[in-house]
Amino acid sequence: MKKLINDSDDVVDEMLDGMIATYPDRLRRLPETQVLVRRDAPVDRKVGVVTGGGSGHEPTHAGYIGDGMLDGAAAGDVFSSPTADEFEELISACDAGDGVLAIIKNYEGDVMNFETAIDLAEMEGTDVATVVVDDDVAVEDSLYTSGRRGVCGTILVHKAAGAKAAEGGTLAEVQRVGQKVVNNVGTMGMALTSCVTPEKGEPTFELGDDEIELGIGIHGEPGTERTQIMSADEITEELTESVLDDLELGEDQDVVTIVNGMGATPQMELFVINRKLQEILEARGVETWDAMVGDYMTSLDMEGCSITICAVDDELKSLLEASADTPALAVQWVMPAPRSLLLSRISPSVSKLSATTWQN
Amino acid sequence: MKKLINDSDDVVDEMLDGMIATYPDRLRRLPETQVLVRRDAPVDRKVGVVTGGGSGHEPTHAGYIGDGMLDGAAAGDVFSSPTADEFEELISACDAGDGVLAIIKNYEGDVMNFETAIDLAEMEGTDVATVVVDDDVAVEDSLYTSGRRGVCGTILVHKAAGAKAAEGGTLAEVQRVGQKVVNNVGTMGMALTSCVTPEKGEPTFELGDDEIELGIGIHGEPGTERTQIMSADEITEELTESVLDDLELGEDQDVVTIVNGMGATPQMELFVINRKLQEILEARGVETWDAMVGDYMTSLDMEGCSITICAVDDELKSLLEASADTPALAVQWVMPAPRSLLLSRISPSVSKLSATTWQN
Repeated sequence: MKKLINDSDDVVDEMLDGMIATYPDRLRRLPETQVLVRRDAPVDRKVGVVTGGGSGHEPTHAGYIGDGMLDGAAAGDVFSSPTADEFEELISACDAGDGVLAIIKNYEGDVMNFETAIDLAEMEGTDVATVVVDDDVAVEDSLYTSGRRGVCGTILVHKAAGAKAAEGGTLAEVQRVGQKVVNNVGTMGMALTSCVTPEKGEPTFELGDDEIELGIGIHGEPGTERTQIMSADEITEELTESVLDDLELGEDQDVVTIVNGMGATPQMELFVINRKLQEILEARGVETWDAMVGDYMTSLDMEGCSITICAVDDELKSLLEASADTPALAVQWVMPAPRSLLLSRISPSVSKLSATTWQN
Repeated sequence: MKKLINDSDDVVDEMLDGMIATYPDRLRRLPETQVLVRRDAPVDRKVGVVTGGGSGHEPTHAGYIGDGMLDGAAAGDVFSSPTADEFEELISACDAGDGVLAIIKNYEGDVMNFETAIDLAEMEGTDVATVVVDDDVAVEDSLYTSGRRGVCGTILVHKAAGAKAAEGGTLAEVQRVGQKVVNNVGTMGMALTSCVTPEKGEPTFELGDDEIELGIGIHGEPGTERTQIMSADEITEELTESVLDDLELGEDQDVVTIVNGMGATPQMELFVINRKLQEILEARGVETWDAMVGDYMTSLDMEGCSITICAVDDELKSLLEASADTPALAVQWVMPAPRSLLLSRISPSVSKLSATTWQN
């Protein structure tokens, strides 16, 4: 194994310190924990929005901490749930008195530890609501999970719930819009290669030189099918059809799409995938309101991608295009010149939330 | 070889169409070329800022097209220079009558083809100035290059020159600030693994299971030293010392730093590197004005990283923090509330240009 690390026992700790060294004015680390929060948390007169999960999926989740998205995130060890104690410290640090929404990816450890933490926080007088994200259409009841797994669609939950909280929504309202995303989003992934965890130092699973795995999870959990390598177009068709079959969209439905890299996939290949994805959607009469391409929820050094499709109505559009300012995703209203009002929606790496520009 | 592509002959063409499918309101493709430009190019009363080079380094360069940075970029085939004809079409499409700055990474093919294109454009009446970027401190006269290679420091040239053009600078002024970055920036890279080009389908070079290459180029060109794998901290020291030796910074010099991923490096590892980089700089009395971490100039699926350090004075700071709005890097002034003026500098993936926030 070759990795840019020191000791595998220290990698999460050093990563978190490295994030603070990169964003000292945005983030702070709760002492003696693996929890990062906004520097100004808790934010007065705002519902807190928090999440957490195993490390190795960066920029998920700490990259989405900031104005208009998350107030904080707990980082477990690589591919391991944070402890209940850390979740509880996270919730407390992000409660300004208006309650906290916990966004939980559906893995047994995360769900269990978050639930314990919520019981503790509620005993201390914090109102907590939850949204459990289970957008992976590939499998039910996989390794680590009862029901479906939570994967890349989670970041749209962060965005919508974060926007609702930022505009002053109540805990129930913030929870409702988060759940609305969950009810309307589906994701399907695939891998060309396994990831290698720092601790284990060898591939989590074996794939032949001419094999790919469809329906893979973000920890290398088994998918639906192991098959011979196919062309990018064929792979895009497989993933897209699986998601569309699950979503059962109405006619002329507007959607947000995400072509997500698993960590080691060149951007070049993600754009090749998005080209075909948009072609398929257009042929099916599905209207892409926004197309995102980039590394949003990764699996260490896995090569592969996932496709996420989320049906959006006017409410979700307005939440997704609301201002946000985080290291990994930003959406901004800009007024560059007095004569023109330019709506610019920006985000990370090779992506954005919408690109419509209009002038008056 | 397993890649998410269709035919290796079509990969650049399909990538460019995929970029247009992702950013239809930002970018357009010049017909029958591999040239992407701003949708509104040429921009009236503004010097055009253009660049180009081989594909395989995404988001370099097309990801930096937009307000405050590039007006357009020519994409060659993978690791190959664009043709002189394509460079000439690029220059013409971005000239609104005030001239065009061509930013050229120092590779023989790029320099030669750009020079031919400039001769052609000047015959058509376009004023063209150039900046040749050669920030790689590793080697002189390497494969493809006389002198030093142009690598990740190039994006700071895009940013500074683009900002100067956006504020109405003359061609000479835009050229001057671009050159100022070149005079003050150094980069050193390393690889854990080789990249694999779609065409060749196998590693560009061989590295043993316990070997790394220091001073690697972004096309897998040989570096300065092949050595046993070291810890992340040791690697960071090697890279940082090489750059600092070259730059010979004055006391209390302010710098911008970039920890750049080569394409297949998990963000986790880049943050581990940045943690150590900032520690070293602090111990040396160098002041980090801004730390950036992310994939800015990649080498397909190479695992590894580079460290860029750029000395910045007040002029460069003001250009680097000026507004920009591109797919891969954005810097925004935001007014979130009437009482506060918040300066927010945002950029791609896991990075930003500065994170200072102040309120009044």
